Amino acid sequence: MLNLPKKVTIIEVGPRDGLQNEKLFVPTEIKKQFISKLKKAGLKEMELTSFVSPKWVPQMADAAEITADCLDADSLNIVLAPNRNGINRVYAANCHAVAVFVGVSNSFNLKNINKSTQDSMAELKPIIHELKEKNYFVRACISTAFYCPYEGKIAETETLRLCREFVEAGVDELSVADTIGMAAPNEAYSLFSTLTEQFTDILLTAHFHDTRKLGLANIFASLQAGISRFDTSAGGLGGCPFAPGASGNTATEDVVYMLERMGIDTGIDLDKLMEAIEVVRPHLSREIDSGYYRLHTKS
Amino acid sequence: MLNLPKKVTIIEVGPRDGLQNEKLFVPTEIKKQFISKLKKAGLKEMELTSFVSPKWVPQMADAAEITADCLDADSLNIVLAPNRNGINRVYAANCHAVAVFVGVSNSFNLKNINKSTQDSMAELKPIIHELKEKNYFVRACISTAFYCPYEGKIAETETLRLCREFVEAGVDELSVADTIGMAAPNEAYSLFSTLTEQFTDILLTAHFHDTRKLGLANIFASLQAGISRFDTSAGGLGGCPFAPGASGNTATEDVVYMLERMGIDTGIDLDKLMEAIEVVRPHLSREIDSGYYRLHTKS
Repeated sequence: MLNLPKKVTIIEVGPRDGLQNEKLFVPTEIKKQFISKLKKAGLKEMELTSFVSPKWVPQMADAAEITADCLDADSLNIVLAPNRNGINRVYAANCHAVAVFVGVSNSFNLKNINKSTQDSMAELKPIIHELKEKNYFVRACISTAFYCPYEGKIAETETLRLCREFVEAGVDELSVADTIGMAAPNEAYSLFSTLTEQFTDILLTAHFHDTRKLGLANIFASLQAGISRFDTSAGGLGGCPFAPGASGNTATEDVVYMLERMGIDTGIDLDKLMEAIEVVRPHLSREIDSGYYRLHTKS
Repeated sequence: MLNLPKKVTIIEVGPRDGLQNEKLFVPTEIKKQFISKLKKAGLKEMELTSFVSPKWVPQMADAAEITADCLDADSLNIVLAPNRNGINRVYAANCHAVAVFVGVSNSFNLKNINKSTQDSMAELKPIIHELKEKNYFVRACISTAFYCPYEGKIAETETLRLCREFVEAGVDELSVADTIGMAAPNEAYSLFSTLTEQFTDILLTAHFHDTRKLGLANIFASLQAGISRFDTSAGGLGGCPFAPGASGNTATEDVVYMLERMGIDTGIDLDKLMEAIEVVRPHLSREIDSGYYRLHTKS
């Protein structure tokens, strides 16, 4: 028999992980409408924006304005902060949920944020402690958890070790990512089975890119490993500018379609999700190529 | 633990199911080169062509020439025949493996071949008997095994009943198809678990379309149901002209990539498969959009 949950939580990462990869600046007003319509579609947990340096990621220069406008009591509104500077900007905003991130791969972390994985952790641990003292919800995003574009295969033990460090530091959620979309379903099953066994008191989230069309198969495998939280991106937006070969995230609409068709409740309205995508679509440098969107707009 | 086979057989359906959906005639010489290169890539079971009426499907008008040229002792060279006329043309050729087909859905079968499912079976049973007496390998293709574009959900019992009729008629293989790419992984698991339980002495093959990007997830689910044979199409060619909304088959290269990455042997060389696709690509009316092809040609 298949082991499937009755309910799954989708964490929408389109406004942050998705738009961050768009070279042309998407107007702040459009971002706000996009976020608002995503929430109306039922997406109650969301990465809103990122307090990275506007010099490095101009697309996220409006982080403070987006945060100020898009907070609401009904949703888990997560903002990213890469370092102490970012955290100080978060404190000036009024939000209550923060994501920090680090790559298991040292080479990736160096290219991504110019620090070794170890240096990142040394900086983040006191920050996490501080955030928890201030009652923030803290999400740790673990990138290159399976493969690295520079180092290749990442040992499962390395990923587990980093996850444990975050858990011991007191985070509320681990979002474990296949950053370059190379994990095979048996690898997804293996890592997430071990994670669900080892960490029973934490929110465990899987984040798959659809680079090789393996996103849905990996999600199906992870469901069987006991995972019931997935990061996805409306329209399949996103990727990673520092990971050669990486394309979009697994599309929210394709994941919701698959889950609902299996009788798993997501609380998400696909028609309203299509409306959200239409808000941002004219401002993107790419086509939406999720299966559901293509079928929906053709018919 | 995951239940995965060590080895999987891929039945390449590109030259038949794939090209049949191309409106512009692909030159016979190109088809022959395509088939030859697919075989060199390790695809040892293949639907070569179809002896349908050239009036209905002009693309297959060269069925006799393709068959005469592409038979070889190392491969299972399958040709389709929809009815008595087709079978008589097969007898004039020198091949040894024939596929017959019927839809579980009566409405679909009527639209597809202008006969009720029952009338199709009444015509096919003596043909199958005759083919087996002549020592042909007989493959039964069961379309609309999950959903029908006209009738919606097909009851599992209906599909099982039709499969049993074919097995009792003496076929060697059942190829059970999600013709419009609507099956969810739990439905794939359910039907194929029952089929592998009920029919232990027959080759059981799953055929998934990738219309909603569920192809790989459905294959992963079917592996766990004990299936180790899959119909796929190089480049994701194909679909069904009579099934509104249906797009391509699950791409051979995406399936092989996923399987090999899980340590499952397919015997297929992906570089050589890319060469086969390049032969036919300039003659197609559509882009190749498999994940593997897009990554391979970008890099």
